[in-house]
Amino acid sequence: MLPFARVAIIGMGLIGSSLARAIREAMPTVAINAHDASAEVRARVAELGLADDVADNAGTAVMDADLVILCVPVGAMAAVAADIAADLAPDTVVSDVGSVKESVARVLGTALPGVHVIPAHPVAGTEKSGPDAGFASLFKGRWCIITPPPRADAVMVERLSEFWRRLGARVDLMDAPHHDRVLAVTSHLPHLIAYSIVGTASDLEEVTKSEVIKYSAGGFRDFTRIAASDPVMWRDVFLNNREAVLELLGRFTEDLVALQRAIRWGDGEALESLFTRTRAIRRSIIDEGQDTDKPDFGRDHPDAD
Amino acid sequence: MLPFARVAIIGMGLIGSSLARAIREAMPTVAINAHDASAEVRARVAELGLADDVADNAGTAVMDADLVILCVPVGAMAAVAADIAADLAPDTVVSDVGSVKESVARVLGTALPGVHVIPAHPVAGTEKSGPDAGFASLFKGRWCIITPPPRADAVMVERLSEFWRRLGARVDLMDAPHHDRVLAVTSHLPHLIAYSIVGTASDLEEVTKSEVIKYSAGGFRDFTRIAASDPVMWRDVFLNNREAVLELLGRFTEDLVALQRAIRWGDGEALESLFTRTRAIRRSIIDEGQDTDKPDFGRDHPDAD
Repeated sequence: MLPFARVAIIGMGLIGSSLARAIREAMPTVAINAHDASAEVRARVAELGLADDVADNAGTAVMDADLVILCVPVGAMAAVAADIAADLAPDTVVSDVGSVKESVARVLGTALPGVHVIPAHPVAGTEKSGPDAGFASLFKGRWCIITPPPRADAVMVERLSEFWRRLGARVDLMDAPHHDRVLAVTSHLPHLIAYSIVGTASDLEEVTKSEVIKYSAGGFRDFTRIAASDPVMWRDVFLNNREAVLELLGRFTEDLVALQRAIRWGDGEALESLFTRTRAIRRSIIDEGQDTDKPDFGRDHPDAD
Repeated sequence: MLPFARVAIIGMGLIGSSLARAIREAMPTVAINAHDASAEVRARVAELGLADDVADNAGTAVMDADLVILCVPVGAMAAVAADIAADLAPDTVVSDVGSVKESVARVLGTALPGVHVIPAHPVAGTEKSGPDAGFASLFKGRWCIITPPPRADAVMVERLSEFWRRLGARVDLMDAPHHDRVLAVTSHLPHLIAYSIVGTASDLEEVTKSEVIKYSAGGFRDFTRIAASDPVMWRDVFLNNREAVLELLGRFTEDLVALQRAIRWGDGEALESLFTRTRAIRRSIIDEGQDTDKPDFGRDHPDAD
């Protein structure tokens, strides 16, 4: 039996539109209602045939759904929750895909009393945005972390888990504060650093922007991919996971200063020892199926293995 | 006419073995002598048929060559130069592929007086190492920066430029100190930061290493690729481009602290403004043919555009 019969997706960007495509592929009989705040996006979603019904407002979209998934920036959750509160059917599960879970759980819990709020986070994405950027396989082999609030209905949690598994994801349960600390490491700090280094590189006087672009294959270009991610989504992530990010940033800066000192004093042993240690982590990530082993992520090299 | 008739490659790792393959493909009549300090690598090079002659010592390899390319870590240049000094034919060009140019020019200039020393740096590579990791197309569409010392022979510089162009590279001339400042931005700092963040992530107490690996698709995994690069090569880069790297690191830390402050004070505008600005740089890198536009570098997503 399918875990849900009609899913409402609010927000049809990269993740929302990937969800719609993945549902169509994995559970073709499930009905999809979609809404996006942008009229342009709604028109494009209709054109692409991503939903059975494209609603002009969020309330209409959720009315007959038994699962609602909010795919909007974390900072927009409160407003969307207020929009749909009066229109939710009893026993509807309200979930989301935000990169921060503690603040989202609090916001949705407050705005939707008595509703089955079960926040979730599929750890997947690309640097692209908008309904054209989505694709059905985005969640395949990736982890979806569900963070059930205290006293969440176990049956509903299992239905939501089954839903994600059918889309190809692997599911983990975690409490929200721990999720936020884990993602600060595996996602938020990497994005912050990528944004920061790309900013630094654009602002130099001695090295021109054109030189930075021409010689970016030396490593810099990798950072620019992450730093091309959606600005509003990421602004909201940092504003809503402030404590975990700031704590980790302190650790990172400390470690970076230690490296700086090793370079200044010519401590080759310290450098080589760190650089050797970091290879093992990549190996494990590949072994766990979380990245490709092709050189350079497989880009641009038709005759490499 | 071919720019050189017999090329000696000293060091048959990723770059040296890619060079051998690229020469075979682009200039099949050019003879290739190869040497590597490791007997195991030499045996593998012979097995793969990458060279016409695999010499047991560097001196023998360079004897009848009109171009010698040193593909060893920057810190090994002095020893190799001493090894070959007595065996170089008159008018042989000695070049290299190191990521740092000022210190290499100094070391080679001192060790090889009267020799045509013309350092170069193809800005290309992957995270893999060793003779099996090389491939012929590595330099295609990438830039090779040649840093001719003052009073370098213009004809020899042009022959070396032509050699790299025939391998598919685009050639730029630059003075060595400027090269080192440019590469500090586009390559050295990105590597240092990647090594550092991977180190930080491995040393946390609250978040386990297994969690870091499982959820690495949130962005972290991108950094692990760069941080899997050759440890000795990179140790030498930082020891030999100390000033430029330290200066840039100072700038980077300053910018990162400003971001930290924006997060602490909830300055969403500052965050969004930086995150929007950084998108343009990626666009330019793609337009200049220095990276793929496929989402996620094209990895893992058979049904994405």
